[in-house]
Amino acid sequence: MTKGAAVRQRHRVAVLGATGAVGQTFVRLLANHPWFELAEVAASERSAGKAYGEAARWLGTEPLPACVAEMTVLPCDPGRVTADIVFSALDSGAAQDAEPAFARAGKTVLTNAKNYRMPPDVPLVIAEVNPSHLDVLDAQRKNRGWTGAIVANGNCSAIVSTLPLAPIHQQFGINKVFVMTMQAISGAGYPGVPALDILGNVIPYIGDEEPKIESEIQKFLGTSNGSAISSATFPVSAHANRVPVENGHTVCLSIALEQKASADDVARAIADWRGAECLGELPSAPERPLVLTMVPDQPQPRRQVGTGGGMSIVVGRVRPDPILDVKLVAMGDNIMRGAAGASVLNAELMVHRGLIGGT
Amino acid sequence: MTKGAAVRQRHRVAVLGATGAVGQTFVRLLANHPWFELAEVAASERSAGKAYGEAARWLGTEPLPACVAEMTVLPCDPGRVTADIVFSALDSGAAQDAEPAFARAGKTVLTNAKNYRMPPDVPLVIAEVNPSHLDVLDAQRKNRGWTGAIVANGNCSAIVSTLPLAPIHQQFGINKVFVMTMQAISGAGYPGVPALDILGNVIPYIGDEEPKIESEIQKFLGTSNGSAISSATFPVSAHANRVPVENGHTVCLSIALEQKASADDVARAIADWRGAECLGELPSAPERPLVLTMVPDQPQPRRQVGTGGGMSIVVGRVRPDPILDVKLVAMGDNIMRGAAGASVLNAELMVHRGLIGGT
Amino acid sequence: MTKGAAVRQRHRVAVLGATGAVGQTFVRLLANHPWFELAEVAASERSAGKAYGEAARWLGTEPLPACVAEMTVLPCDPGRVTADIVFSALDSGAAQDAEPAFARAGKTVLTNAKNYRMPPDVPLVIAEVNPSHLDVLDAQRKNRGWTGAIVANGNCSAIVSTLPLAPIHQQFGINKVFVMTMQAISGAGYPGVPALDILGNVIPYIGDEEPKIESEIQKFLGTSNGSAISSATFPVSAHANRVPVENGHTVCLSIALEQKASADDVARAIADWRGAECLGELPSAPERPLVLTMVPDQPQPRRQVGTGGGMSIVVGRVRPDPILDVKLVAMGDNIMRGAAGASVLNAELMVHRGLIGGT
Amino acid sequence: MTKGAAVRQRHRVAVLGATGAVGQTFVRLLANHPWFELAEVAASERSAGKAYGEAARWLGTEPLPACVAEMTVLPCDPGRVTADIVFSALDSGAAQDAEPAFARAGKTVLTNAKNYRMPPDVPLVIAEVNPSHLDVLDAQRKNRGWTGAIVANGNCSAIVSTLPLAPIHQQFGINKVFVMTMQAISGAGYPGVPALDILGNVIPYIGDEEPKIESEIQKFLGTSNGSAISSATFPVSAHANRVPVENGHTVCLSIALEQKASADDVARAIADWRGAECLGELPSAPERPLVLTMVPDQPQPRRQVGTGGGMSIVVGRVRPDPILDVKLVAMGDNIMRGAAGASVLNAELMVHRGLIGGT
Repeated sequence: MTKGAAVRQRHRVAVLGATGAVGQTFVRLLANHPWFELAEVAASERSAGKAYGEAARWLGTEPLPACVAEMTVLPCDPGRVTADIVFSALDSGAAQDAEPAFARAGKTVLTNAKNYRMPPDVPLVIAEVNPSHLDVLDAQRKNRGWTGAIVANGNCSAIVSTLPLAPIHQQFGINKVFVMTMQAISGAGYPGVPALDILGNVIPYIGDEEPKIESEIQKFLGTSNGSAISSATFPVSAHANRVPVENGHTVCLSIALEQKASADDVARAIADWRGAECLGELPSAPERPLVLTMVPDQPQPRRQVGTGGGMSIVVGRVRPDPILDVKLVAMGDNIMRGAAGASVLNAELMVHRGLIGGT
Repeated sequence: MTKGAAVRQRHRVAVLGATGAVGQTFVRLLANHPWFELAEVAASERSAGKAYGEAARWLGTEPLPACVAEMTVLPCDPGRVTADIVFSALDSGAAQDAEPAFARAGKTVLTNAKNYRMPPDVPLVIAEVNPSHLDVLDAQRKNRGWTGAIVANGNCSAIVSTLPLAPIHQQFGINKVFVMTMQAISGAGYPGVPALDILGNVIPYIGDEEPKIESEIQKFLGTSNGSAISSATFPVSAHANRVPVENGHTVCLSIALEQKASADDVARAIADWRGAECLGELPSAPERPLVLTMVPDQPQPRRQVGTGGGMSIVVGRVRPDPILDVKLVAMGDNIMRGAAGASVLNAELMVHRGLIGGT
Repeated sequence: MTKGAAVRQRHRVAVLGATGAVGQTFVRLLANHPWFELAEVAASERSAGKAYGEAARWLGTEPLPACVAEMTVLPCDPGRVTADIVFSALDSGAAQDAEPAFARAGKTVLTNAKNYRMPPDVPLVIAEVNPSHLDVLDAQRKNRGWTGAIVANGNCSAIVSTLPLAPIHQQFGINKVFVMTMQAISGAGYPGVPALDILGNVIPYIGDEEPKIESEIQKFLGTSNGSAISSATFPVSAHANRVPVENGHTVCLSIALEQKASADDVARAIADWRGAECLGELPSAPERPLVLTMVPDQPQPRRQVGTGGGMSIVVGRVRPDPILDVKLVAMGDNIMRGAAGASVLNAELMVHRGLIGGT
Repeated sequence: MTKGAAVRQRHRVAVLGATGAVGQTFVRLLANHPWFELAEVAASERSAGKAYGEAARWLGTEPLPACVAEMTVLPCDPGRVTADIVFSALDSGAAQDAEPAFARAGKTVLTNAKNYRMPPDVPLVIAEVNPSHLDVLDAQRKNRGWTGAIVANGNCSAIVSTLPLAPIHQQFGINKVFVMTMQAISGAGYPGVPALDILGNVIPYIGDEEPKIESEIQKFLGTSNGSAISSATFPVSAHANRVPVENGHTVCLSIALEQKASADDVARAIADWRGAECLGELPSAPERPLVLTMVPDQPQPRRQVGTGGGMSIVVGRVRPDPILDVKLVAMGDNIMRGAAGASVLNAELMVHRGLIGGT
């Protein structure tokens, strides 16, 4: 994360819901960010007023930076948070009212909450996949009477699935997608999944996850007309499972194509893809958003979750599918690429394009 | 296993490959079987001549019965094994020559090896699903000049997948099947999967597993004309994964139907199904081969692997599929229902039908 | 648990804190108990008034018996619970006031809570080890003005450790004990330990556990003068650890003896020990409270936790200790032997001795 | 590992047993080492002649460097290996003859094998603890007629235990040590522990481990008279256990002191200790060999195994012991600090002192 370190003045940012698992990841990523200065942390009333180091049960393996530990936790109130760029790790109950309130108050909210992912005037963005969806922000402001904005991050499994689908859709067109997930426990936050439920076990169900995966993949791969986003219309069917893995979601994908192509063609499309042009300059962008492996039993979460600093999706086993056209396995870091890291990358993209922080 | 205990004289049986993980399960199941008497154990040259208790590193949680521990391990030679009913837990290298040799010598071989599953004159049988396929045995003997026979057991994931598919195929017709597996480590035998490979990890690949799952489901649900079995022609696409679960394979199935039906119709077909008529009298037959659960996050391997003494498949989450017609989750004991227990049940079925042991 | 099934009329019992993990185990053990009839379930105000099947998130692998599922949960109020024998799975916050209230109201409370384990007039009992400590109950009633009584169960690790120490103390006298535990997650109840904390990890700390282990071992192996119990005076040093095991606490013990003895002498004392005389008649008593194994790498929790229906401690690796005299490994089911099962056995012992339910 | 990068010409080194798990770690550490140039890899006859990339099933999460992948594997023959500094990851069967042969041929062998750890003229060294033991090398050469030498690395649990004991022994004197280990599966190499043996389990036994831990701690903390090392005479008692942790051995220590001291005194001695003077200049030396934590439930292997690049031991829970004087918990990376990393640090120390590579 040293790319571009010296080029510009750092933008002051705040984290909402800073004490939880995703919030802590934001804090970790922003504590030494070359473009952003972590100026404020906010959380629930219960934590507000305490020092962050007391309020948060720090989960990181590296110690919490002292300067952050000493910050006083603010309430999630746009009248108290002064930063204009706000990363939200709020749970959906808190996000429902708080995020529009911040947007109304002129803040740009980059959110991990599920609440505002699906309206057509809210961009649901993966920086490498659909940066053009940010062009609906003017319409969003107009529609809603906001001076700020909400930009949404997707569900972790939807992100891990969409990245390898993107070059396939761009090059060959996608007709149908089966996605079967094996999701890490870190995706459920902390304390999250009780050990008694998952040790040596599989839970073939994650509440509300399958509809999110299905609809968000369609929106990520949809199109914007400048004022609204239309989701792609190909059907998606998801099976979501929890497995005893600490970090890294693995997804099995079977894909039908518009335009016939071999497994080799698809593998090449994945290997060659670099995403949208500009991203190499962004501090959080990995060298390659997709890394293709030819090792027969890879990708594996424990071995490869850190690829590209946790921001690359590792793709393997690209092969013909007896029913649809091609099948493959993808794996990515659900915390970095699937949550906080993706939001930070989105914010970097917006700075780079002059959509925030410009003045 | 006390059903029918007194009804008949016990048939002498032998186990080939008795020292390995599946072989030990055979030994455990047969040591106190009401219809079968474990008369002989055979294994590789390395073990032959030793006491079984010495040759086998006993993996069971219950102690090895003393009478078995004292048996001398025989070589896998049809001239040395006297029992007419032979359960084979040989690996495929050893099975290739040994199993035909036993069949040629007049023995009925109930095998777990993969070698002879696919020829049209070898019945690949799940007792509740396709007992009629046993009618090719006369043709098999004639084709091959054997006085004995080979009856094959399927791959563990193919069995776990086929059982819930059977009533669906019988009632509505199946057009297409996606199957995604999350397989327990016990399926790889002992020592099997190194802990360093699987602890906290997923391995999205099991060598040669996907083709077996695909072709065996088709054969199980195929038809016999009395002299040869024709596999069903609907396509199957499999994704096979290894997960850190001790015992119990979980499979996610998406199914297209010939004749339209709702998820409720399919759930009812599963709940009502009892398999072939006679099985209630067989000692290893579970009360219900399929147990439907309505608990949203079940079936789970660690919680339900023992259902029906490990011989029932637990099915849950029957719901509409956005691409095909219906999707569901099934889970079963890969060692009992998916391997040794299934072979023993097949042997019981054959005894019941007078196909073996009749004199 | 069929021993003595027909001999007597069943005593009505209640479970306090019936919806939690230990409470559910009581329900499971008492639902078909030959001597006890589960007449009432009680829990916190939040659950009171609901059907038990709704109030409890059932954790058992066997389904909850229908007759229990339909019971209405009572509040933990001695005026509402009519049974005279009460098993308490209350947490210590609730137990502090509720248990004396029940004792005052004439109920015999068999408790798993930690609150009343240490007073000299409360028997802390392992049925096979120190049944004579029940003789302080008259003094307890007199001291406290109760018509009922409290009989305490120990900490799970203290019980697993004490059972193998008992024959050693009886035969050779114990001078010092080191105990190092590796405790299963089920010991922390449900939801208990977050998976993110323990998957692939060791936590070398369990709050307040070490002092309990140290003082309870001393009390179990202490003496009663008929009106008060004096703890044994040998020092105990405990290291308590949590490990990613579902069920079964493993303890490493190093022991100094009063009277010199070899490791073989100690092994023989363990192998020969049967505990107090009468226990064979009690339904929950295992055939052997201690099972000695000579397999070099045993006992192991996953393989042997069910020994004696979960009521036997498996002991192995009895060998000389370079500092003290002897060291060994013991393992037992922390839920059965270490919690609910031990309380039920204590209640059976009291019935057998006419201390409860007599008339 | 960039310390001192430019100061000197790199020394050519070889790795024996380079294809196994420890050998691969050597390769990984030496592939970009500032002082050493990995010039040759050697392994068993089976691998010799192949490209290293083919012969080794690479276990690292980072890809194998291409320059190493292309190296031809040599046989473990001192006539074929030209480097003068040789790291041995041979198993003890191969090490027995090969290591003396290399020493006789003038090579300095830094070995992880157990064979030559205990003779009084072989230094068993932890760089921070007992660098002075290297002064027996002249005697070793004279005694054995070698022009080279053998310098031994200890058992992984012995190293993890000895580091926190060192400042305690130096400052207060140690009288007795109890050590109870919970060892990671990576300590058993690859394939090592079968998943079926350890998933959700504890194995309270590791073959031959306890005597090694006991005697090696004594030797590490012993004294050299310049020609022979005398082990410390305080007794050590070890309980060794395997737990389902990927990497990081945790040890519980109870310690009796010569000179009375409080737990706080001991904690301070640990916190203040930096080991031998010179080590700050060595590329593999961590900033602190011991890191004291005050977090009550730490150290934990999964969270802190990477402390100091895997070369620091994290120590916590320093508290009074009811039998001896003080108890504590220590945890360290068994692969880095406990095996390959320790050997590399020893080699760096020898270079720094002019004991090897000097010309």
